[in-house]
Amino acid sequence: MSSTPPRIAVVEVGPRDGLQNEPTAIATADKVRFVDALSRAGHRHIEVSAFVSPKWVPQMADAGAVFEAIARVPGVCYTALVPNLAGLTRALAARVDGVAVFAAASERFSIANINQSIDESLARYAEVVAEARAQDLPVRGYVSCAFGCPFEGAVAPAAVIRVTRALLEMGVGQVAISDTIGVGHPGQVRTLLAQLAADVPLARLALHFHDTRGTALANVLAGLDAGIATFDASAGGLGGCPYAPGAAGNLATEDLLYMLDGLGLETGVSRSGVMVASLALQPLLGHPLRSPSVQADLAASRR
Amino acid sequence: MSSTPPRIAVVEVGPRDGLQNEPTAIATADKVRFVDALSRAGHRHIEVSAFVSPKWVPQMADAGAVFEAIARVPGVCYTALVPNLAGLTRALAARVDGVAVFAAASERFSIANINQSIDESLARYAEVVAEARAQDLPVRGYVSCAFGCPFEGAVAPAAVIRVTRALLEMGVGQVAISDTIGVGHPGQVRTLLAQLAADVPLARLALHFHDTRGTALANVLAGLDAGIATFDASAGGLGGCPYAPGAAGNLATEDLLYMLDGLGLETGVSRSGVMVASLALQPLLGHPLRSPSVQADLAASRR
Repeated sequence: MSSTPPRIAVVEVGPRDGLQNEPTAIATADKVRFVDALSRAGHRHIEVSAFVSPKWVPQMADAGAVFEAIARVPGVCYTALVPNLAGLTRALAARVDGVAVFAAASERFSIANINQSIDESLARYAEVVAEARAQDLPVRGYVSCAFGCPFEGAVAPAAVIRVTRALLEMGVGQVAISDTIGVGHPGQVRTLLAQLAADVPLARLALHFHDTRGTALANVLAGLDAGIATFDASAGGLGGCPYAPGAAGNLATEDLLYMLDGLGLETGVSRSGVMVASLALQPLLGHPLRSPSVQADLAASRR
Repeated sequence: MSSTPPRIAVVEVGPRDGLQNEPTAIATADKVRFVDALSRAGHRHIEVSAFVSPKWVPQMADAGAVFEAIARVPGVCYTALVPNLAGLTRALAARVDGVAVFAAASERFSIANINQSIDESLARYAEVVAEARAQDLPVRGYVSCAFGCPFEGAVAPAAVIRVTRALLEMGVGQVAISDTIGVGHPGQVRTLLAQLAADVPLARLALHFHDTRGTALANVLAGLDAGIATFDASAGGLGGCPYAPGAAGNLATEDLLYMLDGLGLETGVSRSGVMVASLALQPLLGHPLRSPSVQADLAASRR
């Protein structure tokens, strides 16, 4: 128990994971304003976009234009998801500060999502990581479906550990253990992290939760207790659950900060600053922001 | 660490705390069906209604009729909120299995909510509790605003402890430490419970959370870790936040059970049984049930 609150890193995934899963397309200029507001809120790591095929993910077709137009704040790491070497080439041209690759712990999800088996995807990512590292670019990895799969149901911790180790061994700096469909609960978080800790340094792991069933902050609390110091979140709760349309998706950055601030854990990110960013998008989305803490603040301000 | 999962008690407050804070009135027959479905789901403690002035709380005006019509399952404790001796008399006539009194940890909330100072309310409750005990009726107490007040903001743990002790000393069997406006976070839960534990037996406490800001299950987790074994919840998440209209209110029983089931903690309550009860009310409410796990299940069933 130190008297100085430990510092927790928040990775802002709203512009990528959030907007990619919103049904309404957002104009490039609005995305740029969004990213710039997130920078001003104090974020130090923003996943800005994805250099993926616009045929498959039209929401991210303007990745290059967004990177071109954002006002880069020194010290902020602006990253992009890349699926392959072609994407990495585009990302390098856009002067990203880092890239991310997206693997799955579930075979059927991997096939359904990226049309490759887990091993095929890892082989491709090894090339991407080698090339990124050759260009001095840090690489982040996601392990999706780490707490459950929409097709396979339960996912064995051993499958999560295998993919996590493979990513770290190929040179990925940090792996985000991701609850893609928001089924995880704190018992799973404890069990999985205990098993992961036997094989990989916890300092190399982040946790990425979706609040589909209201458990995201409880899962974060279990992660904090286990020693995890990096958490992903999406401003406003942007992004539905792609496998349960209409249900809530990403843990909202404002909700995460509400709890971390309350726990006295420093993040360097201003919750009200993030709200400024997400509320500017709310009228463009076609639905209210999903963050309960944002809606509670809005409701309280109306009474 | 026992090999047998410990048993957690869930107090179902949907018919009272939930429906009392819904904008739409529910017919008596629908309330009866709701309570009966909750009994069938395995609940062992259901707060059915409140014997309060129908002038102030019209939603609860049919308390006697509901108690008259429900199919009482042996072993289930059907209770009602009572504000005073007159309410207790009506409750006794309705053959309740127990009553509850509602005190506040915040002076201004007490005045605003029940038009009495905290001490005035405690003096009145002492009469209610003495009479209830004389009739062999167990009494539960709520301490509202234990984590924050819509008027005073922060609430000192000393104020919560004082009211909790006063209730226990007058003969209340269990006190539900309640986050009426859903501002609590796990750091507060830990601090408050540590301070309460110095003065009162934790086995006499329950926790009552609202999910207004997405923190309810994280707070439950902190409570479980501190040794609390009784939690309140409202089927479907019934009941908005009365001090932030439009915002989420009570922690949904289905969300609580999702996490407790996941943690391997036995409650004796069937989550799907509770969903049967709450989904029957959904078309009558004028809005979707607020439970994220219920909405996720519904969305998944549509795809």
